[in-house]
Amino acid sequence: MGSERVGDEGAFISAVYGGNLTGYTVPMALTDAQLAEIDAARAETRPTLRATVPALEEILHVPLPVLDHGFVRVIDYMGDDAAVVQAARVSYGRGTRKVSEDRGLINYLMRHRHTTPFEMCEIKFHVKLPVFVARQWIRHRTANVNEYSARYSVLDREFYIPAPEHLAAQSAVNRQGRGAVLAGEEAAHVLALLRDDATRSYDHYLEMLNETESGERRDPTRDGLARELARMNLTVNVYTQWYWKTDLHNLLHFLSLRADPHAQYEIRVYADAMAEALRRWVPMVHEAFLDYRMGAAMLSAKMLAVVRRMLAGETVGQAESGLGAREWRELMAVLDRA
Amino acid sequence: MGSERVGDEGAFISAVYGGNLTGYTVPMALTDAQLAEIDAARAETRPTLRATVPALEEILHVPLPVLDHGFVRVIDYMGDDAAVVQAARVSYGRGTRKVSEDRGLINYLMRHRHTTPFEMCEIKFHVKLPVFVARQWIRHRTANVNEYSARYSVLDREFYIPAPEHLAAQSAVNRQGRGAVLAGEEAAHVLALLRDDATRSYDHYLEMLNETESGERRDPTRDGLARELARMNLTVNVYTQWYWKTDLHNLLHFLSLRADPHAQYEIRVYADAMAEALRRWVPMVHEAFLDYRMGAAMLSAKMLAVVRRMLAGETVGQAESGLGAREWRELMAVLDRA
Amino acid sequence: MGSERVGDEGAFISAVYGGNLTGYTVPMALTDAQLAEIDAARAETRPTLRATVPALEEILHVPLPVLDHGFVRVIDYMGDDAAVVQAARVSYGRGTRKVSEDRGLINYLMRHRHTTPFEMCEIKFHVKLPVFVARQWIRHRTANVNEYSARYSVLDREFYIPAPEHLAAQSAVNRQGRGAVLAGEEAAHVLALLRDDATRSYDHYLEMLNETESGERRDPTRDGLARELARMNLTVNVYTQWYWKTDLHNLLHFLSLRADPHAQYEIRVYADAMAEALRRWVPMVHEAFLDYRMGAAMLSAKMLAVVRRMLAGETVGQAESGLGAREWRELMAVLDRA
Amino acid sequence: MGSERVGDEGAFISAVYGGNLTGYTVPMALTDAQLAEIDAARAETRPTLRATVPALEEILHVPLPVLDHGFVRVIDYMGDDAAVVQAARVSYGRGTRKVSEDRGLINYLMRHRHTTPFEMCEIKFHVKLPVFVARQWIRHRTANVNEYSARYSVLDREFYIPAPEHLAAQSAVNRQGRGAVLAGEEAAHVLALLRDDATRSYDHYLEMLNETESGERRDPTRDGLARELARMNLTVNVYTQWYWKTDLHNLLHFLSLRADPHAQYEIRVYADAMAEALRRWVPMVHEAFLDYRMGAAMLSAKMLAVVRRMLAGETVGQAESGLGAREWRELMAVLDRA
Repeated sequence: MGSERVGDEGAFISAVYGGNLTGYTVPMALTDAQLAEIDAARAETRPTLRATVPALEEILHVPLPVLDHGFVRVIDYMGDDAAVVQAARVSYGRGTRKVSEDRGLINYLMRHRHTTPFEMCEIKFHVKLPVFVARQWIRHRTANVNEYSARYSVLDREFYIPAPEHLAAQSAVNRQGRGAVLAGEEAAHVLALLRDDATRSYDHYLEMLNETESGERRDPTRDGLARELARMNLTVNVYTQWYWKTDLHNLLHFLSLRADPHAQYEIRVYADAMAEALRRWVPMVHEAFLDYRMGAAMLSAKMLAVVRRMLAGETVGQAESGLGAREWRELMAVLDRA
Repeated sequence: MGSERVGDEGAFISAVYGGNLTGYTVPMALTDAQLAEIDAARAETRPTLRATVPALEEILHVPLPVLDHGFVRVIDYMGDDAAVVQAARVSYGRGTRKVSEDRGLINYLMRHRHTTPFEMCEIKFHVKLPVFVARQWIRHRTANVNEYSARYSVLDREFYIPAPEHLAAQSAVNRQGRGAVLAGEEAAHVLALLRDDATRSYDHYLEMLNETESGERRDPTRDGLARELARMNLTVNVYTQWYWKTDLHNLLHFLSLRADPHAQYEIRVYADAMAEALRRWVPMVHEAFLDYRMGAAMLSAKMLAVVRRMLAGETVGQAESGLGAREWRELMAVLDRA
Repeated sequence: MGSERVGDEGAFISAVYGGNLTGYTVPMALTDAQLAEIDAARAETRPTLRATVPALEEILHVPLPVLDHGFVRVIDYMGDDAAVVQAARVSYGRGTRKVSEDRGLINYLMRHRHTTPFEMCEIKFHVKLPVFVARQWIRHRTANVNEYSARYSVLDREFYIPAPEHLAAQSAVNRQGRGAVLAGEEAAHVLALLRDDATRSYDHYLEMLNETESGERRDPTRDGLARELARMNLTVNVYTQWYWKTDLHNLLHFLSLRADPHAQYEIRVYADAMAEALRRWVPMVHEAFLDYRMGAAMLSAKMLAVVRRMLAGETVGQAESGLGAREWRELMAVLDRA
Repeated sequence: MGSERVGDEGAFISAVYGGNLTGYTVPMALTDAQLAEIDAARAETRPTLRATVPALEEILHVPLPVLDHGFVRVIDYMGDDAAVVQAARVSYGRGTRKVSEDRGLINYLMRHRHTTPFEMCEIKFHVKLPVFVARQWIRHRTANVNEYSARYSVLDREFYIPAPEHLAAQSAVNRQGRGAVLAGEEAAHVLALLRDDATRSYDHYLEMLNETESGERRDPTRDGLARELARMNLTVNVYTQWYWKTDLHNLLHFLSLRADPHAQYEIRVYADAMAEALRRWVPMVHEAFLDYRMGAAMLSAKMLAVVRRMLAGETVGQAESGLGAREWRELMAVLDRA
């Protein structure tokens, strides 16, 4: 990918790839064929009568790097902020003549969970991600997926090894959380185990397939184990890739769960990259999403009763609150009184 | 919509609207505001890096007339034939280096019901349709819908009255089918009943709403019945409208059921209009769909056994076939031996 | 249905049907054949190794009357409170050895929107409802439905006419809401219009079908209009019926939207009847649902900021709140400061 | 599980477990706690007014062994053959008075792909399966799933090692198929690699977790790596488990794809075990499924044209058929003329 193309893609790509696009150092996940495909896809525009979003077109097809070998790239989209408004207005019909402007309507829809207008926009991503992240991700069922098939093809030698600052110990208080970062010899030992086991498993995978790294047959006298069997020797940090397409409503749902601090770090970084695409694509929806979803909190009937008593001047402790210890802590955290 | 614009839209619009676009006689279903919206939407193109389909752009936003007041118009789309191929190839990865060309791959996917690559394309329609048609249509759950709300707004005075040639008697042999066309006085009487009842119900709807045709209040001293209640007086041939968005796989499923001769005529004509959009959008998929879905037949194990015996030269009648009378007739129909 | 059976069904049925089951006065919606079917279904129990819920078995198959001719009846179910807990524990595996008791776990799942364990329970209803209610209901797509087909069969002469106390005027402030109840001559006039139009439309429906009330052919020399066409003359307050099956998670979602004060009264009463079934079926889930869903409120980031300032002793008005007028009113309502 | 209970469970369990239930040798996948849970679940029946299926109750909760450590067991169900019929009849209403008996109706529904009545039955399985099988399985989105969480809990030391007779070479003609079985040293070498790598990866998993086999902490001075990270070292043949619940229509769809010879052997054996449950649960549906789905073939328009020409006495070869080489082979295979 020549530096000639940098200018076309604008400041964003420089920011992502450090201005040094030749060689495209970051996403080593991309093959030359894929880079050429991206180049071709971005080489010329075509005219359309559909809604377009220039800020998203700027990064269309361009991989946003995630983790050590992964990426997210938007490869297609349908609709924009206005398409949400338009769909809401077909529902409200004549009645909306007086409804105030678009931003207010989008905020209203988000606040009152009128979700169907958000389903009118669609986005398609190409994602490279470790198998154990894919296993969490796929639980979101309202999406369309085409994944690289290891029954059919041979996987690349790429597996996720955490950066030292993400090598966290098990949390002592949260069974699905992380504690302090490991350090020193312990960290080095863990990294060595991860790297050695993944490497050895991959070496043996190729050996069982009777294939060389470049896809040649090693021993011409035999066939090698079936791909669909050999793959079972790979560790779940091996990278896979897929096309993943969803509507805006379901994307917001995905992000609200996966861009959340309770999500595992390794999927959260994917959600973060997708949130950047969201911001470019539908800025009004993005803003409403931050206010009414990501930054919002659901207060139960009992929690609301506590807040009302507090606002009435009463001093309420957990004992008088009717809340369990855990719920009380959650409420105090929401109210910044932790 | 001025005649200046006709040239831009090409031969298709002339064909649909008889070359006399000024005044737009056919789809009386469209208000001036909607016509202006269509004009605006078609007024200028924007550049995009996404896949575009010129044959579909030609009719983008333009209503294809259906029934007496209805229409279907494509208002957005994502992907094309190549997007299906691209998704299939991410699944097959390196392995597809030798797979033959695109058409063969699409045929293969269709034949073997590999449906996920077809989910990678998406299309959005704006549809005006009678309520009883909407009730059948909505049973297809894997779609996104925003319908005009009669809780919120007042419906227009538009209801479906069949053309005389579609005024069919109940079939004597098929409980959900049509028999001969009614004629003479009987037909005239039916049409008069349909028209009178729909008109009277609508008149009373406005009366209960305390509204004039143009949306003014009739009697300024009272509020009128709530819209959400008054609507219950309308007959199910009243027209509603919605945005309906689905992926290509589910569109094909919809068309295979609704463009079928067993579907009710009044929904089949919508399916036919959408099939025309399909043909423009993804011509290779459309052709494969005709061959492997619309023109295909599923033969049961017992039916296949009969065919094999026939091919072996045996003369097989229903009695020796192991099939029930109805299945036998269905098989003979498929084999053109009815 | 003989009074001998009353004792078997317990106090609930007495409460619903006033202790006078013979003749089953309330749900005139039921035919004798349906009553006999219910009798047969309740006549004897069978042994099972599945989870059973006696409180729900008490009303199994029994129609709970809704509106003037409608009903809801539970006809099958799968799972109970313990099935939710069991599913959550398979997720948490060994780790849950120390997790506290079932109620706490269910509350936790509900509070943190861990929805999949609730999907492990399933319920099936038989519902009789007006078409305009069915049209709202069917928008919930994650359910299984089999509806009475008016293409295939003839609908009964039953339409919804609101009780006088539900004959509300259009709200002046909320476009999809109700205002004061109509009274006097205006109310009488509206009721007469609704009754007359529905009756006339139904009369003409039968006339076009060439059928008598009892299903005989009127004029033996002709076939009558096809059922799929004749039905288009019916008003949307005609009753239809369906089987509707969903999982517990989606039932809760349905109830949270349809048992809500913003829902139209005519669907809310169905939701209320289903909520009664919910209470009997999964009492712990029902209680958690009331606290964390029905009685809860989602506060946006900006709303939370206002609450925090108030709790810190600041006097905040709308002007200083950063909230729009509408949001401010919504917040004050939640905080009981309206 | 004492031999006293064998009599209660009937001949099936004897057949599965060789009559030697004490010790339950086959599914070593089950812990003592799980065996006790099964015993408890089968210890006594409860009365219900719901439909019950004695042939399915016979094996309810009992694990059917699959692969070397896996199993499938039915843990709940809703409905039976009659529930399908009942749902179809609500759709057809009065009109079905004359429709012939249940079997004929079920066959008709299956043949004409009237799928909604099949959605009225539901079944819930508990499954233990290798991760790479789970990855294929989860692509069926219309199901409810709760999977054991390796973020939260520690996985057991169990991984799938193929039996020697399933250690197949890559097919030379089908990129996702298997060829001849490996033999001799090559087979032994592959098995050793699979076993060694899985074992070593699991050993290191525990080491990184700082846990012993029995769940004790090894080095009391440190926390061990977070579970959500340590798991990434496991190979995809490690076993996981889940609850999987779906409706009958979607179960048939799953089985039609996964009990098919083109499916990978390791998922096909799960489908086979589920098909056995299907046969016990809904015998009429099962039979119709074999005839109209598993044993059926979809013939394209062009294929049908060829069959008609052959039946008319014409000798047709590929050259004159209009079919590609691959389609021609597929057609010949269906017609047993390969």
